[in-house]
Amino acid sequence: MYRLYDYKTSGNGYKVALLLTQLKQLFAYVETDILAGETHTPEFLAKNPNGKVPVLETPEGDLLSESNAILAWLAEGTPFLPSDRMGRYQVLQWMFWEQYSHEPYIATSRFWLHHPDAESFYAKLNERRPGGLKALKLMEDHLSRHDFLVAESYTIADIALYAYTHVAPEGCFPLDDYPAVRAWLERVRNQPNHITIQEKVQAS
Amino acid sequence: MYRLYDYKTSGNGYKVALLLTQLKQLFAYVETDILAGETHTPEFLAKNPNGKVPVLETPEGDLLSESNAILAWLAEGTPFLPSDRMGRYQVLQWMFWEQYSHEPYIATSRFWLHHPDAESFYAKLNERRPGGLKALKLMEDHLSRHDFLVAESYTIADIALYAYTHVAPEGCFPLDDYPAVRAWLERVRNQPNHITIQEKVQAS
Repeated sequence: MYRLYDYKTSGNGYKVALLLTQLKQLFAYVETDILAGETHTPEFLAKNPNGKVPVLETPEGDLLSESNAILAWLAEGTPFLPSDRMGRYQVLQWMFWEQYSHEPYIATSRFWLHHPDAESFYAKLNERRPGGLKALKLMEDHLSRHDFLVAESYTIADIALYAYTHVAPEGCFPLDDYPAVRAWLERVRNQPNHITIQEKVQAS
Repeated sequence: MYRLYDYKTSGNGYKVALLLTQLKQLFAYVETDILAGETHTPEFLAKNPNGKVPVLETPEGDLLSESNAILAWLAEGTPFLPSDRMGRYQVLQWMFWEQYSHEPYIATSRFWLHHPDAESFYAKLNERRPGGLKALKLMEDHLSRHDFLVAESYTIADIALYAYTHVAPEGCFPLDDYPAVRAWLERVRNQPNHITIQEKVQAS
């Protein structure tokens, strides 16, 4: 069985839990409290020298980190990753865009606002605002012309972007002005075997 | 022929130029001045709505963005991308790590220090320091045990990490304390058909 080391509110961990569930793969959920330093113990650093969740331990004992790389590994040979070269490229393009141009703005703002020392991050929140708004506008433009991000079907690109977009309002990025994004979120939620971010802890 | 839209000092563009050269693919280099706003014209945004270089136009007219996704697309079916599932995962893991945990610290510091308004970024440079040092230490630990990042052979993971690591000193991250990183840089430089970051403009 898989073991998923993750922090309860992490969208990056949610990506992996959601795909595992939709692939009907059982996994044990190992709660790892990043605020209590549990990703910086010698035991955890032996699993991921970068000291970050999620980490997926495979039934064979391999240790995988970087959420979007884990998605690509799990999805290979399944309908969640296109089989043609351009489709696979487009999935990767969206996932790299997510990690560089979306997550550091939208996910980081949400993390700071829910941090026990949230007030110490207030000054930095403003800096992250333009990047987050730019990311949402780019998604709105694309999704007003497409049902899903790639190949008009549900792929790991949608899972990678859904994870932090659907909780963007928790980072003070309300979605009222992004109707195409909201319609896409609903299409993602309607996929077979969808679980919510709260349900990831119980999914195992 | 390929067309590579790129800014002359960009390490992200260098990754693509280096791989194209090592794959013996001809390309036209289209210099795009990001400081003069040339990535935010309607013409450029039609090529990449995210308004960033590099963009690779294929001989078939497809437009590819996100440097590491372009590397994966170009390398498919070549010795630069492992053919086994775990090897491909490990390449992606390093490339996602590069974009999230290396580039925003080491490349961004270099960009700011060479910006015409460098002084306005001085306060932010300190913030990026711990992340850059952490990234270099992680590479040093790995490369003290391995000749290359993945599968003991030269892959696009090495190209992705070489691009900004070899110019880290230009961002005030000297490499004196990282002998394994320096030895790896030398191994990368010794690969067949290597070009320097300056040579990318003439490689076409």
